[in-house]
Amino acid sequence: MEPIGRKRWAIAEGYIPRESHGPAPELISHETACILNASDVPAHVSITIYFSERECAGPYRIVIPPRRTKHIRFNDLSDPEVIPRGTDYSSVIESDVAVVVQHSRLDSRQDANALLSTIAFPADP
Amino acid sequence: MEPIGRKRWAIAEGYIPRESHGPAPELISHETACILNASDVPAHVSITIYFSERECAGPYRIVIPPRRTKHIRFNDLSDPEVIPRGTDYSSVIESDVAVVVQHSRLDSRQDANALLSTIAFPADP
Amino acid sequence: MEPIGRKRWAIAEGYIPRESHGPAPELISHETACILNASDVPAHVSITIYFSERECAGPYRIVIPPRRTKHIRFNDLSDPEVIPRGTDYSSVIESDVAVVVQHSRLDSRQDANALLSTIAFPADP
Amino acid sequence: MEPIGRKRWAIAEGYIPRESHGPAPELISHETACILNASDVPAHVSITIYFSERECAGPYRIVIPPRRTKHIRFNDLSDPEVIPRGTDYSSVIESDVAVVVQHSRLDSRQDANALLSTIAFPADP
Repeated sequence: MEPIGRKRWAIAEGYIPRESHGPAPELISHETACILNASDVPAHVSITIYFSERECAGPYRIVIPPRRTKHIRFNDLSDPEVIPRGTDYSSVIESDVAVVVQHSRLDSRQDANALLSTIAFPADP
Repeated sequence: MEPIGRKRWAIAEGYIPRESHGPAPELISHETACILNASDVPAHVSITIYFSERECAGPYRIVIPPRRTKHIRFNDLSDPEVIPRGTDYSSVIESDVAVVVQHSRLDSRQDANALLSTIAFPADP
Repeated sequence: MEPIGRKRWAIAEGYIPRESHGPAPELISHETACILNASDVPAHVSITIYFSERECAGPYRIVIPPRRTKHIRFNDLSDPEVIPRGTDYSSVIESDVAVVVQHSRLDSRQDANALLSTIAFPADP
Repeated sequence: MEPIGRKRWAIAEGYIPRESHGPAPELISHETACILNASDVPAHVSITIYFSERECAGPYRIVIPPRRTKHIRFNDLSDPEVIPRGTDYSSVIESDVAVVVQHSRLDSRQDANALLSTIAFPADP
């Protein structure tokens, strides 16, 4: 399939709530970058995390096989370091082939969960 | 009316929750692609679903009449195959005329429902 | 201020829930198009509603004064006709000066309210 | 890093709920503009607020250091004036270097919180 997307994306919002209600892992509060690689070659993706009070974390490296999607939980990123909970951050996502990125959060701090989602910002080609 | 939209869109987020609270069909957990065909000719739409661990499903074919909208529940797609619940996916939507695509989810796994929505990613013209 | 936005926008998602919990008017389930006119002249806006099973409704005409925003509840539109509840629709918003459009819904059908919001689709200039 | 984003953004939706449930400050109803400055120089940002019934408020001035993000709560803006609660508004965000802006709200008026988020509208370069 003809490549779809961009090679550089940004998500300005980022925050992993400290608390959760409901069964794990499904209803644990989490923050996700959904990345679609609709191309016919693997996408080598690197994620850099920006904070308000310290230097960046990362890059976190992920490979997305051809014609596959990965819903990456920021909660699970651990190499080179875990992303702190209850802390504001942003992310920049870079790939060697065009991908599509969408940002979502499930927040289950209170009795019923809340959701947000938005297309990430596609950097100019 | 002058055509509005694009012929190719992507939704990187996709997930149909397994559980629901509240009366069916309105409050069943569901995932929707809202597609507006504001043009004066029918739009022949095909949807391809991408997964993290297997090859794509589809294409699912839908016709949207002139000057009509269709809010397509991914839950209801069954030909060529049903989309599994509780599974990460992404979708690419292609049309022979320009359309506008928005993605929504109603998640009623817990007592009160949660909603998300975003414009889909419009591929470059 | 230099004009900001576009003259033509589309919102593919549209649905006014029939039920609500909580005090009116604040927590009545509602669907909103927030329209910002940052320019120094009035914006003459017309909204057309698209359905899945019938011809369009509208145009609904609204004037937004210079340097003002209007958060238009679709629930309140009544001329030329009320928008039916519990019915799928989409909307196209046209203006004679550039404006910015964002779509939101508050859904209070269950005990706790749910929210969604997205930037509308900006038609190509 | 190569600059990412735009120098001018708009958020058409804006509303700070008057009430909240849950512990402060985390679960106070709030409205946020998340601004990422991925560049290597400070970003001088100014925010102007538009209302439906009065002239604009602002500019509110914020500096975002190089390679930092700021999640700015509209609730906290106080110079030149506090933003009224329970009132519709929109915002325009201008910066001297490219930044990325995302809009979020946490609404805890009812027992469980609700969330919305969207990429802001990036003005044409």
